[in-house]
This record gives sequence, C-alpha cells and structure tokens, in this order.
Amino acid sequence: MPDSAALKEMAQKLRRHSLTSTSEAGSGHPTTCMSCAEIMSVLYFHEMRFDPKNPKARNVDEFIDSPLEGHPTPNSPWVRIATGSLGQGLSASVGIAIAKRVDKIPARVYCVLGDSESAEGSVWEAAELAAFYKLDNLVAILDANRLGQSGPTMLQHNLDGYLAKWVAFGWNAVSIDGHNVDEIKAALDKARATKGKPTAIVARTFKGRGVTFLEDKDNWHGKPLKKGEELNKALAEIGDPKVTIPVPSRFADGAAPSKNGSFSVDAPELAPTYAPGAEVATREAFGAALVKLGKVNPDVMGLDAEVKNSTFTDKFKAAFPDRFVDCYIAEQNMAGVALGLASEGKIPFASTFACFLTRAFDQIRMAGISKPAHLVFVGTHVGVSIGEDGASQMGLEDLSMFRSVIGSTVLYPSDAVSAERVTALAAATPGIVYLRMSRPKTKTLYTAQDKFVVGGSKTLRASQKDVATVVAAGITVYEALKAYDLLQKEGISIRVIDAYSVKPIDEATLRKSAGETKKLITVEDHQQAGGLGEAVAALGLAPKMLCVREVPRSGKPEELIEWAGISAKAIVAAVKA
Amino acid sequence: MPDSAALKEMAQKLRRHSLTSTSEAGSGHPTTCMSCAEIMSVLYFHEMRFDPKNPKARNVDEFIDSPLEGHPTPNSPWVRIATGSLGQGLSASVGIAIAKRVDKIPARVYCVLGDSESAEGSVWEAAELAAFYKLDNLVAILDANRLGQSGPTMLQHNLDGYLAKWVAFGWNAVSIDGHNVDEIKAALDKARATKGKPTAIVARTFKGRGVTFLEDKDNWHGKPLKKGEELNKALAEIGDPKVTIPVPSRFADGAAPSKNGSFSVDAPELAPTYAPGAEVATREAFGAALVKLGKVNPDVMGLDAEVKNSTFTDKFKAAFPDRFVDCYIAEQNMAGVALGLASEGKIPFASTFACFLTRAFDQIRMAGISKPAHLVFVGTHVGVSIGEDGASQMGLEDLSMFRSVIGSTVLYPSDAVSAERVTALAAATPGIVYLRMSRPKTKTLYTAQDKFVVGGSKTLRASQKDVATVVAAGITVYEALKAYDLLQKEGISIRVIDAYSVKPIDEATLRKSAGETKKLITVEDHQQAGGLGEAVAALGLAPKMLCVREVPRSGKPEELIEWAGISAKAIVAAVKA
Repeated sequence: MPDSAALKEMAQKLRRHSLTSTSEAGSGHPTTCMSCAEIMSVLYFHEMRFDPKNPKARNVDEFIDSPLEGHPTPNSPWVRIATGSLGQGLSASVGIAIAKRVDKIPARVYCVLGDSESAEGSVWEAAELAAFYKLDNLVAILDANRLGQSGPTMLQHNLDGYLAKWVAFGWNAVSIDGHNVDEIKAALDKARATKGKPTAIVARTFKGRGVTFLEDKDNWHGKPLKKGEELNKALAEIGDPKVTIPVPSRFADGAAPSKNGSFSVDAPELAPTYAPGAEVATREAFGAALVKLGKVNPDVMGLDAEVKNSTFTDKFKAAFPDRFVDCYIAEQNMAGVALGLASEGKIPFASTFACFLTRAFDQIRMAGISKPAHLVFVGTHVGVSIGEDGASQMGLEDLSMFRSVIGSTVLYPSDAVSAERVTALAAATPGIVYLRMSRPKTKTLYTAQDKFVVGGSKTLRASQKDVATVVAAGITVYEALKAYDLLQKEGISIRVIDAYSVKPIDEATLRKSAGETKKLITVEDHQQAGGLGEAVAALGLAPKMLCVREVPRSGKPEELIEWAGISAKAIVAAVKA
Repeated sequence: MPDSAALKEMAQKLRRHSLTSTSEAGSGHPTTCMSCAEIMSVLYFHEMRFDPKNPKARNVDEFIDSPLEGHPTPNSPWVRIATGSLGQGLSASVGIAIAKRVDKIPARVYCVLGDSESAEGSVWEAAELAAFYKLDNLVAILDANRLGQSGPTMLQHNLDGYLAKWVAFGWNAVSIDGHNVDEIKAALDKARATKGKPTAIVARTFKGRGVTFLEDKDNWHGKPLKKGEELNKALAEIGDPKVTIPVPSRFADGAAPSKNGSFSVDAPELAPTYAPGAEVATREAFGAALVKLGKVNPDVMGLDAEVKNSTFTDKFKAAFPDRFVDCYIAEQNMAGVALGLASEGKIPFASTFACFLTRAFDQIRMAGISKPAHLVFVGTHVGVSIGEDGASQMGLEDLSMFRSVIGSTVLYPSDAVSAERVTALAAATPGIVYLRMSRPKTKTLYTAQDKFVVGGSKTLRASQKDVATVVAAGITVYEALKAYDLLQKEGISIRVIDAYSVKPIDEATLRKSAGETKKLITVEDHQQAGGLGEAVAALGLAPKMLCVREVPRSGKPEELIEWAGISAKAIVAAVKA
C-alpha cells in the first residue's frame, strides 16, 4: 500500500496534469481539480478496490464525480454516468449503492460533491433517501473549496454549517482538512466502520491549491491557464513529481459479478389475459405487466415517487419488495437513482404522474447523455382526461419532453392489452423509453394475438372510401372510434390509426394513409408543441392538429375532452371542415 | 380579536366545510384539510393582516398553501399562485417575502407545507436561500400529519428530526401540537419576535383529525367521503358549529401600496448603440439591455443561479444590487422565487444556462398555470455552438420546453441589436416569456432603427429568383447568410429569414415565402422535437429540417456546427438536394 508521502506526491502530479491538459485543450476547470487532488489521490491509489483492467467489473467500489463539468461522458469506458449538470451525482450514487446491496456485492460507493453544487435540492433528496435506506456502503465527500463560479458559496468555509445539515439528514458526518492525506484516510476508515448510516466527509479545501496566484482566488472558475508564461509559472510551483503508484486489481470480497437476466417479449408469461371488452385503465395494466416482467427478468426494478397506489407500482412492490425503491416525493432523485441502477445493469422502471416527471427533466436530459443500456420512465394521469384534479396534475407536455431526449423511444398505448405489450417492449428496448399511461378505465381493443413493435401503429378502421385519416393515441383513440361510428351514420368513412409508437413514429403507414385519404387529422390529449401532431407534421404531412390549446381547469373527463376540442364531436367537425 | 374557543370552533367549521364540499364535488382532499384546520383558523381569523375586500392589496400579509392539490388556480382572485405540484410553495413565498422587503412593506408571509412534500429538494433550496437572505418576515408551518398518499412519510411524527433540518438550514424552529390553538398562536408570536432568521413551526397533526374513522388512518388521501351514510357519520362527529368571526381589514403598518412602473419599448434610453459590424454575443447584449430596462422601470428585477458572469446579469447586480437575487445553484427555487416576485407586481428576469432551466421545468409548468402578469426566463449557452464544454452544458431542448408552456412567448435573437430589443419586448409582453441567448460573439446585423415585434421575423435576403427559403434563428442565421454567399457564387439565390419570434411564429411571412420559393428549409441549433422546424411544420409547410440529431460531444463551435449538419455547407446541400 502506498505511504502518505507517495499519495501526497501523486496529488501534486494530478494537479500538474490538470493544469497541462486543460491548458492544452484551452478549456476545463483546473482550479476545481486542484482543490480535490488529495481526495482523488487517496481514493484512487489507496481506498477504492477496483480492477484497472476491467471497467465493466461489478464487484468493485464505484466512484462518482458529481461536479465534473464539460467532460466526461460515457465515451470513456470508465465513466458510466455523465455528469456536468450539478447536484445529480449523489442520486446516481444512491442508485449504485442500492444495486450493490440488492446483488449482495459488498462494494462501497464514493461520491465527490462540490460545495457550490450542494445548494441543489436534489442533493438533499438523495441524502434523505440514503439515510432512510441506511446505505452505509455510501460515502459522500464534500470538496468545500469556498468558491463557486461567480463568487463565494453561501456557507464558504463554515464546516460546522455543512456538518449540521448532513447530520440533520441522518448521516454520520466528519470534517477534515481536505489537503491532508492522513486525515482523508482516517475519515474513510471511519466511514467504513460506521454501520447503519452513510457517511459525509466535509473536506476543507482551497480552489487552485498549490499555485499561489490561483489558490483561494476568485474569478478562476472554469479557466485554463494560458500556455507559456502563465502556465509555466504555475508548473514551477507545482513541481514535476515522478511518483508512480501501481494499482493492483482488487475486488469487494471476491463476489462473482451477477449475470444479467434476459427474456423474450413473446414469453407466454407475459401474455395479457383480459376478457374482450374488459374496462381497465392502461395504468393498471402497466402495474400488472410490471409484475409479470419482474417474474421473467430479475434485473427489472421498480421505482415510484409516493404515488404507487395511483401508478399501480404497488403491485410490483408487493411482489418484489427488495427490487422496489420508494423514492417518496422527490422525482429528481428518483430519476437519478434510476440512472444509477441502470449503470449497474438493472432495468429500472421509474413511475409517477407524467406532469411530475417534468420535475426531473434535467436528470432525464443528463440520462440521455449517459446513454444507459436500459432506463424506462412511466408517466401516468396524462392529459385533461384525468378530470377533476385539474391542470396541476395533468401531463400535457410529457410527450414533447421525452421526444426531445435524443435517442429516446416514446410509447403511448390506448388499451390494457397494448399497455402490457409496450411495457414488455420497453424492458427490451435499449436506451431511454417513456411509457405514457392514462387514468380512466377504457375497453380493451386488442387481443393477446396482436403484435406491437417499436415504430409500429395499428390501423383500427380502414376502407377504400376513407375521406380522412385520424391519427390518435391513448384516450383519443376511443374518441376517434366514436367519431368513426358517428360519421358512418352519415355515410362517411374515415381511417383510424392508433399511433402507439409516438417515437419512432410509423412513417411508412402514415405516408401511405396520407396519400390514400385526402385529409390527415391528428388528435392528442397533450398540448401542441413537440407532441403527436408535430411529430406527424415533421414528416411533411401537414395534418390538422387537434390538441389542448388552453390551460385546463377542473371538470369531468368527458367535459374536459369536449372543452379541449379533442372529442369525437371535434374530430367529426375536423373531418367535415 | 377572537378568543381561542372561537378559533377552535372555527377549525371545526372548516373541517365540516372540507367534508361537505369535497363530497359534493366528488373529489378533493378532505383529510389533509382536516389536519391543518386549526392552523388555517388561527392564520386567517387571528394572525394575518389583510383586507377581505381587496385581494389585490400589497401592504398585507400573504399566505401560500403549498400542498394544495387539484385546486385552486388563479381563477380565484385570492389565489395568485397555483399550487398542486408539491414542494413549490416555499419558493414562491421566498419571492413574495423578498418583494415585500424590496418595497419596504413590513408584511409577513406564511407558507403551510405538507410533511410528505418536504422530501422535495426544492423545499431545501428555498429554506437555504431564505436563511441566507435573513428573511425574518417569512414563516413556514409544517403540517406534520405523518401520512403521505400511499403510506407513512419517512419521518412520520419524529418532530425532532424535522426541527434538526430546519435549524441546520439556518432557521429558527419550534415544534407544537398543531391542533392546539394556543400553541399555534404562541409560535406565531415567537416567529414575529425573531429577527434575522425565518421561522419554521413544525406542527404535529393528524390527518383526518376530528372523525374517528378517518383520523391517522392510512388510505384516505385524496378521497372524499361518499354522500349519505358515510358523510353523515363524519359530520355527526364534527358537529355543526355556528361560529362566525368577523375579519376586519388590517394592513401591515398602513404603508401605501407602491404603484407599478411602466415604460415604452421605444424609449430612447433603450436604443442599442452598437457600431456596425461590432462582434458581441447576444448574451452580453442581454446583460446590457437588462440594465437599461432596470433604469426605465423600477419593477424589473434580476435573478441568476450562480452563473451571472456568464449570463451577464452581473451587470444588473452591480447597477441594482437591491433588485438582484442570486439564487445560487438552485434553479428550481429560482423559478419559484421569480414566480413569487411576479405575483407581487415585479417583472422578474430569471437567467441561467438554457440547459439548466430544464431543472425547473415543473416550476415553469406551474408558473404557466398561475398565469403571472410578467415572468421572463433567459437561457444562455444554447446549442452545440457553445463548443468545448460539451453536451451537459448545451441547451438543446429549451425551445421545445418553453413552446410547450401554454400561452408562452419564445424569442430567439440572432444579433446584439435584436437581443437588446427583444429583452425590452419581453418586459412588455404579458405572461411567460423565454429569451434564448447564444454564447459566441456574433456581428451585428441590425441597427437601432430596425423594429422587432412579438410574432415578427426579419427577411434578410430576398429576390424574385429565390429557389428556397431558409428559416433560421440565433447562430444559424449566420450560417444561412454564409450559405447565401456561397450559393450566390453559383448563381443560386435563396431567401433568408431570421425567425427571432419562435412563438408566436410569423405565419404570414412564412406562408408567403413558402408559396413563392419552391423549397423551405429550417435550421436550428436545437434538436428536432418541438423546435423551430416543428413549429414551421405545424403550419403545414413541410420544411426540410436541419437540426441536432445526435448527442453532441466536446469540440470547437465551428466543428460542432458542421458535425451537427446545421452549417452553411449543410444548408447549401439542402438547397441543392
């Protein structure tokens, strides 16, 4: 094991590297790297057990660098979670710590946080949940270097102020001199010995430490030094340490990494079993499907934000209590925890009301950059069709939000059968998947023999005489079918398409239909921007778009659907216009 | 002043009303109302000074009911801020408290929070800032009724646990029996006497208090009682109190409400003064414009989230330190504080990197439902054109996010002149306005004589021989102009439109151009969903859309613009295709 002198010298080497590399690139955050150099040296060259030859190993300690901006992204195999938007690293760390525990891997998780970034409320959501779940395999190290980007932080070097918060949130907390290698080691030893609580190490550090004209000076955030005189002056002070420290492969008690499960979406256990005409809400079907999935694939996990009796993830919790994480009313953290679970090979389903997923948009955005193997978000209670609870509870922008995540898949089933099918599809589709579920009970439209695919659609009504194509999804499929019946009475035929795959959308079917019928109408329980209508318009098909255009109020679902102009009557009027 | 017995009886009356009204409506949250009935009674009938005849008075105490779901919205004149998405009320309260202080109105602000909702990190962002700014005119009352929606809260009735958090975050904190009117009064008196710190009153309460089959029982969240036997049984226990308590008009020390400022966007002081061809980033021009606005309208206020030296709101801070609120790295709270300021008649400009505004999407969504008179969000560092800092710092979904806020206005200026003009426009436009600002320096394109309007656009190049119309905004206007020059060399003419008003978009000009030129191309530094291209497509104009289609990496701005396919070269290729 390296001695403290070697670790101290390594810290200087890390400082030198931060300066030279950022100067070469012309961008980066050297002064931030310089405040946590001792911490990084001790973590990587002394504390953490990992295999330098295998970034994919699971029975190893894990490191999350929460404040790291700009870079890095998972283009590097060692970086499984992209950071750069602050206050998100601790949530991911909580997810990783939970995954280790679920898989009985006695590894430890280390998260370095910036002091400035701990103003983010998401840090305190993560802290609360970590303490509640007694994650004693988790260590947070606060690099309290006093300076933010545009001035000092609120607490500056008030270490007791920081300690009080972590203790109040249920953590074991110690403060240290963050540039003292022996104090760092001792604090990490203490953390390891502490059972039943995670540990926060509040490290007093100085931004730009090691170079007199940088140390503890404002206005150097995110600024590389200019190559030449400025850089050389700094490097002269740092020195050019030649220390090397071999890092042996070490594991967390040698537990073998668990194999990931696999499953087929066509597995008989996953088949929906609804009687024809059964009235079941898609959210309820989702809840049932998640349990079935849980049975065929041990990697599936469920998360919820204190609405599990509304999203029906309570069924998954009852069936698999060890694979369910109740995140309480803290959606940002739920999204980050889900990403952490995903990075550990889990297939997380994170659910809440669609409108509350907007609380986690930055985390969802960052997840998109992280490109997880599997990460599913489920939003229920969408649109005006939720009824009486009113606008604050209505998801009206969730299709747009998830469509805007580059590489995402967005599925929006209309009935219980397709809801179960797309839930299974979601677990089999790489990357970020969004499932949109409705509140009201609806009749089944499909049978277990119907197939559903990403990028597909279902044509529910079609004839050679169709004067218009109505493209709907979710609750509006039923309105379109009612409109079909009303128009049939007048001898007018329309085509009805259930566009359950909003992204990618079934371009071929839509183009063909648009060509064959004179008019294209889209109808969605969602506002216009970025929704189903704009997705169809983006194909160049110029639809008449029916959607929610005013802030809704409280009312009965049927009244609101009428008010919003997305009802059967509105569809009929659009066909005839 | 009413005595405690009358206040206690009034609490029972409020309980009765909660039960009967929710049963009648068939929806609502009676058990939650029942836990805070004494608190509401004391606040409204004893503590708060307000004018029952005038909901618009400003020199009065203010009340925010943070956990109120479903209802209410500002359809009621007494509700200036819509709640329903949890954990947002305290932020708005902070904004209101700051506004009172700025206007030297010695009123007090009372915010009732739910215990379950205080898992939301935004609550702790607000708590931190309130203590940092020593808002001793602010009182938070935590209705700790132990039960959330789907089960108990994490802390249940651990009052010391709650107290420790508020104290750690810098508040004065006391715990009380939340059903004891005298204890509530005493705590409020203590809060009023406490200087230099806000006060949190942690009230131990019981959900469903007053009815034995509801009190402290799980599974009654958000459930009205059935009319008939169930309701009658409850009402029999509550009784039918006939107490009335007259509420006199009372004011906070009789200070006259301040008149709102007004200004004209054509005021000479607001004219941009750039030399032709000056190279100035739109974010920098925004910074200058905000100062000019601050001079002509005292209601303008600035907020930032610790990037003020990048968004250039530091200039406003320097000019008007009392009208600037640094919100530190806590964007959710910044958005909520801005909404609170807006409800007090201010014209807030809340700025940060566009990508970090996604952190506040739920708050922005709720602000849309609140329909503030004026509320401006400013997002800088948009698109791949920020360069080296990489994907985590690039705003790629902000146009979509703000377009999806029903009733919003979205402006995206290309040069410094238009940036100043739209900043002034934003302050004059009702509702929520989003200004999108770029990082790189760009040449001025316009002069002080050019006019900019919401819903307008500028046609920068046009001729009778245009074979295509290129619709651009922000940085891509420059790419379009370069493409124009390249094509001119080949004898090909194109029309170039600066669509600085993304929402509402200049439909008339775009339709005309689409009709006159064979091809329509949109080009944006933003991904596809909900962006400029889809906004144009929504008009039925079937554009070829150039936009960011993959997760970007770090690189030089020019390289990334080329990589993303939104460069002059890409435009030329699209014209010729």
